[in-house]
Amino acid sequence: MTMRLGERFRVTLHGTSHGPEVGVSIEGIPAGTPIDPVGIQSQLDRRRPVGRRLATKRQEEDRLLIDSGVDHGRATGGVFRAHVANEDVRREAYDRMGNTPRPGHADYPARVRYGAEADLSGGGIFSGRMTVGLVIGGAIARELLRPLGVDLVAFTRSIAGVEAPVPETIENSDLRARAASNEVGAPDPEAARRMEKAIAEARRDGDSVGGIVEVRATGVPVGLGEPFFDSIESVIAHAVFSVPAVKAVEFGSGFAAARLRGSEHNDPFVWKDGTVVTETNHAGGILGGLATGMPIVFRVAVKPTSSIARPQRTVDLGTGLSTSLVVTGRHDPCIVPRAVVVLESVTAIALADLALRGRYLA
Amino acid sequence: MTMRLGERFRVTLHGTSHGPEVGVSIEGIPAGTPIDPVGIQSQLDRRRPVGRRLATKRQEEDRLLIDSGVDHGRATGGVFRAHVANEDVRREAYDRMGNTPRPGHADYPARVRYGAEADLSGGGIFSGRMTVGLVIGGAIARELLRPLGVDLVAFTRSIAGVEAPVPETIENSDLRARAASNEVGAPDPEAARRMEKAIAEARRDGDSVGGIVEVRATGVPVGLGEPFFDSIESVIAHAVFSVPAVKAVEFGSGFAAARLRGSEHNDPFVWKDGTVVTETNHAGGILGGLATGMPIVFRVAVKPTSSIARPQRTVDLGTGLSTSLVVTGRHDPCIVPRAVVVLESVTAIALADLALRGRYLA
Amino acid sequence: MTMRLGERFRVTLHGTSHGPEVGVSIEGIPAGTPIDPVGIQSQLDRRRPVGRRLATKRQEEDRLLIDSGVDHGRATGGVFRAHVANEDVRREAYDRMGNTPRPGHADYPARVRYGAEADLSGGGIFSGRMTVGLVIGGAIARELLRPLGVDLVAFTRSIAGVEAPVPETIENSDLRARAASNEVGAPDPEAARRMEKAIAEARRDGDSVGGIVEVRATGVPVGLGEPFFDSIESVIAHAVFSVPAVKAVEFGSGFAAARLRGSEHNDPFVWKDGTVVTETNHAGGILGGLATGMPIVFRVAVKPTSSIARPQRTVDLGTGLSTSLVVTGRHDPCIVPRAVVVLESVTAIALADLALRGRYLA
Amino acid sequence: MTMRLGERFRVTLHGTSHGPEVGVSIEGIPAGTPIDPVGIQSQLDRRRPVGRRLATKRQEEDRLLIDSGVDHGRATGGVFRAHVANEDVRREAYDRMGNTPRPGHADYPARVRYGAEADLSGGGIFSGRMTVGLVIGGAIARELLRPLGVDLVAFTRSIAGVEAPVPETIENSDLRARAASNEVGAPDPEAARRMEKAIAEARRDGDSVGGIVEVRATGVPVGLGEPFFDSIESVIAHAVFSVPAVKAVEFGSGFAAARLRGSEHNDPFVWKDGTVVTETNHAGGILGGLATGMPIVFRVAVKPTSSIARPQRTVDLGTGLSTSLVVTGRHDPCIVPRAVVVLESVTAIALADLALRGRYLA
Repeated sequence: MTMRLGERFRVTLHGTSHGPEVGVSIEGIPAGTPIDPVGIQSQLDRRRPVGRRLATKRQEEDRLLIDSGVDHGRATGGVFRAHVANEDVRREAYDRMGNTPRPGHADYPARVRYGAEADLSGGGIFSGRMTVGLVIGGAIARELLRPLGVDLVAFTRSIAGVEAPVPETIENSDLRARAASNEVGAPDPEAARRMEKAIAEARRDGDSVGGIVEVRATGVPVGLGEPFFDSIESVIAHAVFSVPAVKAVEFGSGFAAARLRGSEHNDPFVWKDGTVVTETNHAGGILGGLATGMPIVFRVAVKPTSSIARPQRTVDLGTGLSTSLVVTGRHDPCIVPRAVVVLESVTAIALADLALRGRYLA
Repeated sequence: MTMRLGERFRVTLHGTSHGPEVGVSIEGIPAGTPIDPVGIQSQLDRRRPVGRRLATKRQEEDRLLIDSGVDHGRATGGVFRAHVANEDVRREAYDRMGNTPRPGHADYPARVRYGAEADLSGGGIFSGRMTVGLVIGGAIARELLRPLGVDLVAFTRSIAGVEAPVPETIENSDLRARAASNEVGAPDPEAARRMEKAIAEARRDGDSVGGIVEVRATGVPVGLGEPFFDSIESVIAHAVFSVPAVKAVEFGSGFAAARLRGSEHNDPFVWKDGTVVTETNHAGGILGGLATGMPIVFRVAVKPTSSIARPQRTVDLGTGLSTSLVVTGRHDPCIVPRAVVVLESVTAIALADLALRGRYLA
Repeated sequence: MTMRLGERFRVTLHGTSHGPEVGVSIEGIPAGTPIDPVGIQSQLDRRRPVGRRLATKRQEEDRLLIDSGVDHGRATGGVFRAHVANEDVRREAYDRMGNTPRPGHADYPARVRYGAEADLSGGGIFSGRMTVGLVIGGAIARELLRPLGVDLVAFTRSIAGVEAPVPETIENSDLRARAASNEVGAPDPEAARRMEKAIAEARRDGDSVGGIVEVRATGVPVGLGEPFFDSIESVIAHAVFSVPAVKAVEFGSGFAAARLRGSEHNDPFVWKDGTVVTETNHAGGILGGLATGMPIVFRVAVKPTSSIARPQRTVDLGTGLSTSLVVTGRHDPCIVPRAVVVLESVTAIALADLALRGRYLA
Repeated sequence: MTMRLGERFRVTLHGTSHGPEVGVSIEGIPAGTPIDPVGIQSQLDRRRPVGRRLATKRQEEDRLLIDSGVDHGRATGGVFRAHVANEDVRREAYDRMGNTPRPGHADYPARVRYGAEADLSGGGIFSGRMTVGLVIGGAIARELLRPLGVDLVAFTRSIAGVEAPVPETIENSDLRARAASNEVGAPDPEAARRMEKAIAEARRDGDSVGGIVEVRATGVPVGLGEPFFDSIESVIAHAVFSVPAVKAVEFGSGFAAARLRGSEHNDPFVWKDGTVVTETNHAGGILGGLATGMPIVFRVAVKPTSSIARPQRTVDLGTGLSTSLVVTGRHDPCIVPRAVVVLESVTAIALADLALRGRYLA
C-alpha cells in the first residue's frame, strides 16, 4: 500500500475507518509556517455528511488533535502529526464482507490481493474516512500557498445530470460564497434545489447519484510545475485519483479539445495591466506542464456511491454460486458535496508540493 | 525537472530534440528478461509521422542503439540504456523563440521559469521527440508483462469529431489488426478515411485537429495496484499526463458515470467458467484502485497540435507590445495517430511498475 | 530535515525532546506481522539511563502507546504509529542556548542554519531522546527478521579505554546474557566493574567518557544486500551515523585490514555441515556489499557525552567576545550503555529494510 | 540492485566491466553550470593504475564521451550522460568464476543471490571499473561546490602500515601538490618511497596490500547537512561504503574519541578574524550532523586487493569438495592510490547533494 503522497510536502495517512483513529503525518512544512487549528477544523467541518453539518452535536465529531510539529502556533520544521478519533465505530453494521463481494467496492480485488484475513469492514483503508487526513493536509497546504497569492475553490458542477450554471467571469470569493450557501456546494441556488431533490429521490429509492466537481486555483505563479514527468496535470491527477469514487479528470477544455482545431484551441497571448495573460483559457492555466498564470481549472467525475440499499447480484466466493446482497449501514446517497472539500484539499497539497520543489517557497 | 518515472521500473529520459540524441535509461528490469531489439524497433516505427512510415528511407530513422544492460539478448539486471540519434536537426527552422511566445506552447511559462538562456528551440525537453524513450521503455515493459498474460492495445477513438465505432465485444488482437490497417490507427476503415480527410483539410488550412485515444489492457492480474495513493488510476494518469498535448483522461464510464445511479453503475459480479467477472465494466477494470480482472479501459483527450501555420496573436516580451506570429518548420496537423503508441507505452510502463511493486513479477 | 529512514521499511520520527511526545511512524510492515507491545516495551526499558533502570518508578516512564496499524496483535499493513509521552520536561534547566553555543553540541551550526528562532532547548530534534522511535522501530524490525533466523546482539566493547574481552567463539545468546548482567552492557563482569568505576570518576569530575559498541548479526541470509550503492555496509553505516555521538564505524577487520596482506585478509571458503562458510571472518560477514552467511560484525565509536558540568570556553554570538559556559541539567556521564540498544535497533531496521527490498520477506 | 546515489544530485551508474562501456547519468545539475570536459578527463586520469599513468598510450584510455545534458559548455538542466568505452575486454582472462568462488570477492553471495546465470566475470557490476562514473560525477560535483568556496583533497595516509606524516597545519593546496608528486598519492616523499617498495614486494610475492585514505573538505558552509537521518556523516559514509574494498570510516578523532573525556574531546569555540572557529577539530568539522565551518576530515580503511596470484583455498560448489584456486588476470597489488580520487569524488557528490538539498546552491 502507498499511504504517502508528495515529494517535498509529504502527506502520510494512518489509521482505518474502524480503528481508534484516523490521521496524518506531514513532512516538509517549513519551520515558522503559521498553523491555525481553528482554520483546519473549519475545513474538516466542510467534509461532514450533508444534513449533519448544521446539527447540534457538531462539536463532538471529527475534532482535530495535533500531536507534534507545532510550537506556539507555528510549525517547528519537524514532522507534523494530527488525528481525529473514530467515535462511532459500529462494527456490527459494517461487518466483514464474508464471501459476497459488494458490487462497485474494492472487496473482490482486495480479497484476492490481501486474503480473507484482511479486515475490510467499513472499507478499512479503502474508506472515504481516510480522506480526513487529506483535508487536514490541504488546510496546511493552503496556508503555505497563501503568501504566493494562490487562492483555491472547489464546487459542485453537477449532480445526477443537474448542471449548475457558472457565470463566465466570476471571482473565486464569489464562487466560494455561493457554494457555501447550500448543502450540496453548488454555486447556483436553483440548481442546488434540484440537486437536493435528486439526492432525496435517490435516497428514497435506496439508490445513489454521482456528479462533477470543478476546482479552480488562481494566482498560481507563472512557471510552477516540474516538466517532464511531474507536470501540474500529472501531479494533480495523481492526487485526485486517490480520492475514492473519482473516475475522470479533465483540465481546461478537456475532452472538448478533441473536437477543436488548433486555431480555435490555442489561447492568444495579450497584455493586460502590464502582465501577459491569455484571452481564452482552453489550456486550463497549464502549458507544457507549467502554470501560465491564468486560473488552473479542472473538472472531476465522481461516480454514484457504491453502497446502495437495493438488492444487487453478486457471487458467493465460498460456494461458487450466484447470490444477491443488500448492503446495510448508514450511507450517503451522494458523496459529491463531501468530495468538494477533499478535491480542493488534494489540489492544495499538489500545488504546495510543486511550490516547494520549484523553490517558490522557502 | 523530473525526467524520471516509476518506483521499481524506473524510466529516465535524456537528451533534447535538437541535441545529438534522445534516449532512455531504465532501472529495475529483472535480470534475464529477454530484450528484443527488433521488437523495440517495431514499436519505434509506429511512432513515426503519418505518411512517412511507408517511405523507403525508414531504416535510417530513429534507429535503436542499445548502450548497456543487455548481454546475449537478456537483461543483465544493471541499468539498461538506449538512444536514437537526432539525424535531422534543422536549427534554422526551429530557432529560439526570441521574445514572442507561441500560443499553446510551453514557451511563455518556460521562459519565466528558466530564463531566456534556456534553449527551447524545437521544444527542447518539452518536445514530443522525448517520447522516443517512452516507446523504448514501453516495449520492454510489455515484454515484462507478457508472462502475466497482460495484453495491451491502444487505438484512435476519434479525430476532429469523427468517431470510430467499436464493436461491444471485440478481442484485443482484432482491434490491433484493424487499427494497424490504416495510418490513423482507427479500428474502422470508413471512420479512418473520414479522419484522414479531416487531417488533410486541416493541413490545407494551415491548421490542426485533435482527438481521443482509447487504451485497453486485458489479463491484468486481479488485485494489481497500490492503494491508497498509487491506485492504478493514479499511476496511469500520472504517466499519461506526461505525454505532450494530453488534456483529459477517463476510466471506464468516466464522465458518463456522473449521470448514472448506483444501481446502474455498479457492475454485478457473476461466475464465468469458474472465474469471477462482472457483467458490465463501468469500472473500467478497476475498483478501489485495484485491478478486477476485467479489461482496464480508459480514454485520453489529445488537443489539436499547437504548432499551426496560420498567423496567431501573441505578445512581444521585449517591447511590451502585441504582435502576431507564424510558426514555421515541419509540423503534423494531427499527432493523435502518433500518440497511440506513446499512450500504449506509458500504460505498459505504469502496469509493469505496479506489477513489480506488487511482486507479480520476480 | 530528514526524519525518515529506509526504503521499504520506512521509519519516520516525530516530536521533540521538550514537546508533549516523541514517537515514530512505520510504513512497510507486512500485514499479519505479530506486534508485541510487551516486547517493544522491554527494548524501550533497555534505553533508560544507567542507575535508573532498577528504580521503582520504572513503569511510569517511556510507556509505549500504539496509535494505529495494529489489530488483534497483528500489523494491519497500514501505517504503524506509536509514541511515548515526555512526562518530565524541565524547560528551565534546558533553556534556550541564548548566544553561547555549547562545545560539542549542534548549537552553533543549527543556529546558523535555522536561526535564533529554532527551539534547541534540550537538543530539540538533535536530542538523544528522539532515539525512542528508533528503539520501537528496531523491536518491530527484529520481529520481522526472526522467521529468517536472524539474531542480533549489541554490547559494550570498551568504555574510557577499558576493553571487555570477548571469547573468540561465543554464541549470541551467551553474549546477550553476559551483557545484560551489568548496567554498562559489557560481556565481562570484571571489565564491567572497571567501566562503572571510570564512569563514576568522570561523574565526580563533572566530566564524561566515551566507548565502543560492537554489533553482531547471525543468520543473515546469504546474498542479502543491494549492490552497488545500497550495500549492507552503506545502509548500516547510514543508519548508525544518525545516532547522536557516533564518530566511526568499522566492519570486520576494519582499520586493521589496512595493515594486512591479501593472503592474510581473504577468508578461505570451506565446507561445514554441507554449508559454505569461511574459516576466518575478516570480511565481517559481507563481500561485495552482500551477506556471506557468516556473522555480520561491526564496531562503532561513541564520543564522550558533550554535556559536561565543567566550565568550557565558548563565544558570545551577540557581543563577539569570548566567554565561558557551564552546562546545567541532568546528564549521563557516559551514554555508551544506552547507545547499545539504539545501535542494535538501527541495525535491525537496516537489515529489515534490505530483507524487504531483496524479497527475503513477503 | 541500486545503481543510483543521491536525492537532488542523483548519480546513476550503467554498464559493466566487460560490456561495451561504463558510464553515468546525473540528474539535478542546475542549468548553466559550466561543464569542462578537460577537467573531468584529468580526474579520470587520476584513477588510472599506478605505473601506467605516465605511459605513452594514455590518450587512448578511459576517454570521456559526453552524450547529453551539455550545450555550449554548460549544463542544460536535463539529464547529463557520459561514458567511457571498455577497449580492452579480455574475457578469456576474467572468465566466469564457474563453481569456485574467489575468497574476498562477491562471487559466492552473488551466486546465491543472482544464480549461476549472472555474469560475474571480471566483477561485472561489482568491478572497481564502475567507479569511472563516480569520478565523472565527482568532477561535476566539485564544479558545483566551487562557488561556495568548498575545496576537496584526498590523499594516501598509509599503505601496508607505512604512515605518511602530515603537518598539523597544512593547506589543501599544499597537500594536493605533495600527493600529486608521487604515484601512491602520499603527501610525504620518504613515506611514498617506502609505500612503493611495500607494493613492489607484495607484487613480487603474488600478494597485495591495503591502506588508509584521508579526505579533507574546507570551506563547507556552516550548517550544511540534513539532520536527523541525513547527517553529513550518514550521507558521506553511505557513499564511501559503495566504493569497493572500503571496510571502515572515522570522522575527526574517530575511534580515538572512545578513549577521551568530554573535556578533552569537546572543541572550544573561539573568535578568529570575526568568525567562529574551534581551537581543535576533534569533531572533524561536523556537530549534530551539520558542518561547523571547520575542515571536514575523515579517514577510510581500504582492504588489501582480493585478487592475488597465490593459491587460495576455496570450495567447489558443484562437487561439494574443497579445492584451491589461483586467480589469473591483471591485478593491482594495491588499489589505495586509485581509491584516492574515487573517495574524493564520492565526497564531492555527497556534499553537492547536501548543498542542493539545503539550498546552498540554486
